[in-house]
Amino acid sequence: MNAQRYEARRETLRAAMRAKGLSALLVSHAANRFYLSGFELHDVQLNESAGYLIVTADGNDWLCTDPRYLDAARRLWPEERVFIYSGDAPGQINGLLKDKMRGTVGFEARAVTLDFFDKVSPDLTMERADGMVEEMRVIKEPEEIELMRRSAALNHRLMEWVPGILVPGRTEAEVAWDIEKFFREHGASELAFSSIVGVGTNGALPHYAPGDVPLTENCPVLVDVGARLDLYNSDQTRTFWVGDKPADHFTRALEQTKAAQAAAIRIMRPGLPVADAYRAARAHFETQGVAAHFTHALGHGIGLETHEPPSLNPRNEMVLKPGMIVTVEPGLYYPEWGGIRWEYMVLVTEDGVEIL
Amino acid sequence: MNAQRYEARRETLRAAMRAKGLSALLVSHAANRFYLSGFELHDVQLNESAGYLIVTADGNDWLCTDPRYLDAARRLWPEERVFIYSGDAPGQINGLLKDKMRGTVGFEARAVTLDFFDKVSPDLTMERADGMVEEMRVIKEPEEIELMRRSAALNHRLMEWVPGILVPGRTEAEVAWDIEKFFREHGASELAFSSIVGVGTNGALPHYAPGDVPLTENCPVLVDVGARLDLYNSDQTRTFWVGDKPADHFTRALEQTKAAQAAAIRIMRPGLPVADAYRAARAHFETQGVAAHFTHALGHGIGLETHEPPSLNPRNEMVLKPGMIVTVEPGLYYPEWGGIRWEYMVLVTEDGVEIL
Repeated sequence: MNAQRYEARRETLRAAMRAKGLSALLVSHAANRFYLSGFELHDVQLNESAGYLIVTADGNDWLCTDPRYLDAARRLWPEERVFIYSGDAPGQINGLLKDKMRGTVGFEARAVTLDFFDKVSPDLTMERADGMVEEMRVIKEPEEIELMRRSAALNHRLMEWVPGILVPGRTEAEVAWDIEKFFREHGASELAFSSIVGVGTNGALPHYAPGDVPLTENCPVLVDVGARLDLYNSDQTRTFWVGDKPADHFTRALEQTKAAQAAAIRIMRPGLPVADAYRAARAHFETQGVAAHFTHALGHGIGLETHEPPSLNPRNEMVLKPGMIVTVEPGLYYPEWGGIRWEYMVLVTEDGVEIL
Repeated sequence: MNAQRYEARRETLRAAMRAKGLSALLVSHAANRFYLSGFELHDVQLNESAGYLIVTADGNDWLCTDPRYLDAARRLWPEERVFIYSGDAPGQINGLLKDKMRGTVGFEARAVTLDFFDKVSPDLTMERADGMVEEMRVIKEPEEIELMRRSAALNHRLMEWVPGILVPGRTEAEVAWDIEKFFREHGASELAFSSIVGVGTNGALPHYAPGDVPLTENCPVLVDVGARLDLYNSDQTRTFWVGDKPADHFTRALEQTKAAQAAAIRIMRPGLPVADAYRAARAHFETQGVAAHFTHALGHGIGLETHEPPSLNPRNEMVLKPGMIVTVEPGLYYPEWGGIRWEYMVLVTEDGVEIL
């Protein structure tokens, strides 16, 4: 992405800010900050931000960071509007805002701690403005769609390669590490999330961490993995049977899961409430009498973050729009033998969807 | 760690809670949650918690999580005090707290978002109680010290191996990936933080991400890396010269940096203000006339998190105590040719320190 792209995004945001009467927006969510500036996609760790962006209605935007990032900031931003804090970041940003801003300053209440807010807000008029950047990010730009296609393509290559490494005697952790190396050695910068490789009953744990459990002859293995390629994440799940005698309960649950996925994808198009996509999958499980074993949302948006809006859950009131990219990943879980999940990444097009 | 260890830690916390008049503490910081329960060291991603712990004065502690973690929670916790939320986590935890708790509920203002706090707090008496668990974690238990020793030992093995892969023509990113594979294939579960491998002037950027820049004959390379082994992180920096003709400015800055590190370590012992350790390193740089090139803190605590208290910075009023483990990592940065940093992990003992 070049500097013009980031500037164009900030211009779009400015229009939305004006509509809300905001003279500035303090951007603290890392992916939002990166989306608008190209500065640091990641924070250092929980509670240790790499920096904050102040987008202003008048176009004099500020990049605030600590001395460790001074050079990185200078490479991206006019030096006269790089603000370096040291020690008390929120207190010093409060000083900058009081000095430079008039009017209402929006902020992201879901991306600042209470402690940060209490220090950044004194003597300012601040207003919650969550979701303004996410609302832009949810609709992928053509260049982003192309990057997502490439990231998904790498995930497909991985999934074609995986069956060959599912060899009895190898452990979940060994398989997970092979998968990570495949991604990294094919250009990925990092995993999109902690890989899940679950043998047998471990497949029934939706957030299982691979361990020393070995694959056996004739066992199910759930593989839910993704990687970041050129900034954009992929996320797919397949459930494999190791050996040539798949159990009947496995085959049946796999067919039910794929059919539930197909039922959702079939009706997905612009204008469809995301809750209806969830309900279509669930309705199929209900006809099969297994809906109690489907215990999570149908999927989630994906892009710069692995989990972004929209969540495909029954309580979400968003509707599908062209340019959204979401996972569709129904699953059935049976603590006594394991779990099935099957996941695609799906792009909403002008008149339907396309599986990436 | 076994269940008794976690229980013992919660008992210690309970005593501190009683001293503050808290009838419960809502633990939301991931590493604190894990330290007290063994449940999920990591959250899923920014703003997506794996769960919350409610430690109560009466010993009926609750583990709150979402359905994805139900089985993981059951393996660790009495089922009658596993609270499963779905959708509105803070709202539902608010209901649980109102139902079960009387008196003042402490919370971590640096580890909850403003949005979370506004939803979790209605009709409750809540009080900031930041740092109570960190204050325990800062003093490592004997078993933790042993794990930190092992993690540091792996880092030393890595650093002995690194010079052999610093070959002209290879890129920073290739070297970083080799380092990551070394850690992982020697038992590490993940990197402790994004590896820094900076050639030449890139070494002057304290948070540089390795890129396609190749090593050349006779260049400086800064390597700042660490990994998590059996839950505990390591973190060391070395600065190497590739080739046999180190530049004079390199050799001089390296000697100054090592001497500054030694000056700090020499005076570190229980009772010393951490700010004085920083000042000792800085004072050495001042005698050399290069203090302006030392642009960050001297170091930080390390353990379950890479960056923990105490930060060795001039504003921190904490004093060293036996059982603390901190990094000591002075550096000098010259945008025109690169940077030097040299980092050890140091255990505070009863009468001094020990380099791990």
